[in-house]
Amino acid sequence: MALVFGGIEGGGTHSIATLVSADGKILAETDGPSTNHWCVGVDKCTSTINDMVQRAKKEAGLDPNTPLHSLGMALSGGEQKDAIEKLILDMKERFPCLSRDYFITTDAIGSMATASKHGGIVLISGTGSNCKLVNPDGSQVGCGGWGHMMGDEGSAFWISHLAVKTVFDAIDNMVLPPHDITYVKKAMEEYFQVSNLMGMLTHLYRDFQKSHFAGFCKKLAEGAAAGDSLCQYVFTQAGSVLAKHVEAVLPNAQESLLSGEQGLPILCVGAVWNSWDLLKPGFTEFLARVASSEQFKGRFRGYNLLTLKQSSALGGAALGAQSAGAVLTLDYAANTNVFYQHTFTTNERPILISQ
Amino acid sequence: MALVFGGIEGGGTHSIATLVSADGKILAETDGPSTNHWCVGVDKCTSTINDMVQRAKKEAGLDPNTPLHSLGMALSGGEQKDAIEKLILDMKERFPCLSRDYFITTDAIGSMATASKHGGIVLISGTGSNCKLVNPDGSQVGCGGWGHMMGDEGSAFWISHLAVKTVFDAIDNMVLPPHDITYVKKAMEEYFQVSNLMGMLTHLYRDFQKSHFAGFCKKLAEGAAAGDSLCQYVFTQAGSVLAKHVEAVLPNAQESLLSGEQGLPILCVGAVWNSWDLLKPGFTEFLARVASSEQFKGRFRGYNLLTLKQSSALGGAALGAQSAGAVLTLDYAANTNVFYQHTFTTNERPILISQ
Repeated sequence: MALVFGGIEGGGTHSIATLVSADGKILAETDGPSTNHWCVGVDKCTSTINDMVQRAKKEAGLDPNTPLHSLGMALSGGEQKDAIEKLILDMKERFPCLSRDYFITTDAIGSMATASKHGGIVLISGTGSNCKLVNPDGSQVGCGGWGHMMGDEGSAFWISHLAVKTVFDAIDNMVLPPHDITYVKKAMEEYFQVSNLMGMLTHLYRDFQKSHFAGFCKKLAEGAAAGDSLCQYVFTQAGSVLAKHVEAVLPNAQESLLSGEQGLPILCVGAVWNSWDLLKPGFTEFLARVASSEQFKGRFRGYNLLTLKQSSALGGAALGAQSAGAVLTLDYAANTNVFYQHTFTTNERPILISQ
Repeated sequence: MALVFGGIEGGGTHSIATLVSADGKILAETDGPSTNHWCVGVDKCTSTINDMVQRAKKEAGLDPNTPLHSLGMALSGGEQKDAIEKLILDMKERFPCLSRDYFITTDAIGSMATASKHGGIVLISGTGSNCKLVNPDGSQVGCGGWGHMMGDEGSAFWISHLAVKTVFDAIDNMVLPPHDITYVKKAMEEYFQVSNLMGMLTHLYRDFQKSHFAGFCKKLAEGAAAGDSLCQYVFTQAGSVLAKHVEAVLPNAQESLLSGEQGLPILCVGAVWNSWDLLKPGFTEFLARVASSEQFKGRFRGYNLLTLKQSSALGGAALGAQSAGAVLTLDYAANTNVFYQHTFTTNERPILISQ
């Protein structure tokens, strides 16, 4: 059998498995639920991965008992060394037919490997959020990605939480809401099927499911589109705080990333970016302030926002192949799409005086 | 056997059971772990309560197979009607010898019932936080108490979380810390036995225990006492946000609570109040602003802070007895202690012109 490489895109809500041949042809793609091991545990994470890959093998007409050459996994939550080793050990023990070789990286690095070999910033806003700067020389600096207990700023969870917290604080008379809460309160009661704040406790504790809680974000996007000010407000805040991640890693960006013709490439990953129109006011305004700051005036000339046209499972597969000593060539140009481009006005640039 | 009334003080970390005779004499007291059913589940909550009470019966020389006349429980998390009914049903089914009658209220109401019959504000800051205004006519208004996912502002959990988040944000370059993080970062690594931020994920997710996380607050109090600015800062912030709870319920306070000779009684419950010296700057400054605000100028003349000298299990027992149609008389004066008193200066009062 020709070499077959597997890749996984592992999200907090939804996952994808892809099988690829050595010449980059996609042989099969399957999907499954969350594979964030922090949320679902090691057992569930690895058995979901095994299930998706074995289904993909069958779909591609391959023998499920023949291991893949390598399995490269780009997992939300795939960062901590000890945890990664534990996941790989678990897969090797429980699923000996799954793959010969294993490689785990983060969803951010998997996404970047799908989009480019030259680096940029990956800014994830799905169920959770994360930001990673990958320099042309391969060096990396991260910001965020600590999950809902310690961050996830600008993610669907964070947006949902901000909206719900605004309702709680308004009813408690703790904080004056920035806009009327009527729409959000009603939407919350409908989405979570509760009649008051007390009812929310079950969703916050006993039956807490991050992905379900984060799913409320979609209702807020609908409210924002319908003109509700509080819904629009939470997305504007999300736009700002996502841009704040970019500001945080920017001091570590190599000059060539900032000075490229197209401007700084920011790869936007995750379903919240589907609401770009709602994020835009907060995001663009924040980055405009960064660009005009003392530190970046004239250096940070513009940026373009890209999305992936392919699953980051593809980048995961490529990194997995590389780690196993093989080569898997991707067609990067075909994998991305620029959806927004901004150049800061020239009066923010330094004036060059000819001598 | 003479009537025996049971009371429970149920906290997020620690619980107490008290047995009382009809004349108010304490017959026995036992303790146990958390009985917050949102944190530990219904099974664990009720079996811990049963275990504490049965041990107390034996300690008091009573027959464990003879049910108490009533069991009044003041539980952190004892608010939602459906959840309370479920707890009582579970106890009746599993532990038929425990008690004839059951009553559940919140830790806040149980504390107030231990301190006074005339009401006041209960401000809890233990593992979690909560605030309840009880008016002289018995009407109640609450603020906070939604647990660590939706509030707990000013609690030990919140203080620990604020300190840890400040470290995360500083290392991520997301937010400039208000003070140097060196001490807090080292204390965090020691307390949680981790060597970097990644190591914290286990404590935040897979092995998350609210009471253990909140326990870090004690180390921060030690740091504050030793002069560390960031440790002092998080307690000042906690003082402010605890006072914010008072502000939130104040508009609903009946005039007699505000205008009493001693000033507004605020019953302070929970271990964080042991660090009153650290909370004080934030707390007193916030309430001074409230007292001089348009809404309360001249009406909110002062306040006194009280602690309980007895467990709120006593108030729980009294409320349980009352609910079962019996009377249990408490010596309120002996149950409390005033630890701070403040009168706002007279120029904040309205000037009365004699005519």
